[in-house]
Amino acid sequence: MINKRDNKGATGVWCASLTPLNSDLSIDLIHLIDHIQFLLDNGIHGIGLFGTTGEATSFSTSERMVTLEGLLRRGIPKDTLMVGTGCSALTDTTELTKHAIECGVTKVLTLPPFYYKNVSDSGLFESFSEIIDRTQSDLLELYLYHFPIMSQVPISVDLIAKLQKKFPNIIAGVKDSSGDLKHTLNLTDQFPDLAILPGNETHLLAALNHGATGCISATANANPQGIRSIFDGWINQENDIEPLQARALAIRNAFGKHQLVSALKQFASWSTRDDSWLRFRPPLRELEPSESAIL
Amino acid sequence: MINKRDNKGATGVWCASLTPLNSDLSIDLIHLIDHIQFLLDNGIHGIGLFGTTGEATSFSTSERMVTLEGLLRRGIPKDTLMVGTGCSALTDTTELTKHAIECGVTKVLTLPPFYYKNVSDSGLFESFSEIIDRTQSDLLELYLYHFPIMSQVPISVDLIAKLQKKFPNIIAGVKDSSGDLKHTLNLTDQFPDLAILPGNETHLLAALNHGATGCISATANANPQGIRSIFDGWINQENDIEPLQARALAIRNAFGKHQLVSALKQFASWSTRDDSWLRFRPPLRELEPSESAIL
Repeated sequence: MINKRDNKGATGVWCASLTPLNSDLSIDLIHLIDHIQFLLDNGIHGIGLFGTTGEATSFSTSERMVTLEGLLRRGIPKDTLMVGTGCSALTDTTELTKHAIECGVTKVLTLPPFYYKNVSDSGLFESFSEIIDRTQSDLLELYLYHFPIMSQVPISVDLIAKLQKKFPNIIAGVKDSSGDLKHTLNLTDQFPDLAILPGNETHLLAALNHGATGCISATANANPQGIRSIFDGWINQENDIEPLQARALAIRNAFGKHQLVSALKQFASWSTRDDSWLRFRPPLRELEPSESAIL
Repeated sequence: MINKRDNKGATGVWCASLTPLNSDLSIDLIHLIDHIQFLLDNGIHGIGLFGTTGEATSFSTSERMVTLEGLLRRGIPKDTLMVGTGCSALTDTTELTKHAIECGVTKVLTLPPFYYKNVSDSGLFESFSEIIDRTQSDLLELYLYHFPIMSQVPISVDLIAKLQKKFPNIIAGVKDSSGDLKHTLNLTDQFPDLAILPGNETHLLAALNHGATGCISATANANPQGIRSIFDGWINQENDIEPLQARALAIRNAFGKHQLVSALKQFASWSTRDDSWLRFRPPLRELEPSESAIL
């Protein structure tokens, strides 16, 4: 049921990991390793390190590189990681992408440069081309990160097609955080050779049925087994998957009423009885008491 | 006519400098020095280094720091500079702000962290507070950079008031790039002790008449003397300033039809007969031929 992408592309349930912090708001590496191990032990196929949920853009490139090195040194397997590398500065994105490859992590998830708005597809094409050219590695598997509500810089179908044509062995997939199932299904139709992963599990079953290879989910920090069960049910062609999808959707919606990172860190602090989860890099912060009461 | 802010705050016509590039898209320091000298020789009171017009967010912190050091080493006076330091990562903004102070440049212009959207004023307050606390310098004069159309993260009047209350000797002013004269005049009313500088010269005369201390302009790269003449006419209480304002507005509007950085670099390449101006960090790029024909 999983097509040829199985050999290369990201498949299954990936979790966009939260990033736990020390009291000085630096990254708590040991806590992060524990959390990633918890996710892997609970059915998560792979970890999206330094995505939006991981407060990636709130850390410098050196903080991100040191953390990746620390994870690998302490035994997190390279092939379970997809590293976020997209920054507003071309040189920063290039540095992080090269570094991931040097560390043996070949899957990277790359936001477009996100400061300038209303930029042309040609400008974005040049941006991704420069990053790929400067990284100079055939090992690179680049996933395009489409999250227009947050980045305000969409990655158009036309842009994906142009990049795939120029770099057929590098462009590996798309994380589609549009939240729009129609858009996801259009991508699976247009790009059968790419791994298309919706950015959450809201429509996971429908997306899998139409060629998506899995999802990259924030809520998987809180509900790894529940989301995994949908994927397994689909793989095994079970008949009773709809209730699993409905339950995952209800959980997702409970978190989605709030700023998602704040709600997920709040939940992590409850479920592990560890208040250190309630640390954020500004501008993100704890839920208000009225919000956490609702959650 | 210029009030007590004269002693501390930025006054007059500041130019948000373009950043010329080498063929490998690194910063061309010598060319930048020439351009800054041209601006200062043509009436510009001060230089906004690494603002939106200078493609700031497209460069890494190390590229920005090396460039600032190079400018100072080659004789650009410290007190003519206001350095952009706002990045999406708290640690990057802190690094650049500390570095400016260490270099003796006390005026910094700071964007809010701009990746996450719909963040709370409390989160932005914490962000600016952390930056100021970590910089640990009484010399710091921080200008808040309000550019909601680009950053998508507005700096509210309430936030400015809270920051000014907590850091009365640090918060020095606001660059208001809202493009909304009413908003600028509200700021001059609400914050008589701050230097309020509209982000362009469109309404410079009206703003000066209502307490603004000057402007920080992108178009000043192309029209430094024209904008300076408005300020001088106002200082000297001349009677015929309106035509100067109308002329500056017409010039501004000619550039404003296009992506502003692209149009200004195109103009610089024409006026200096130097095609190296037509280099951009992606995602920005040259005007299309049809656009440059209109310009």
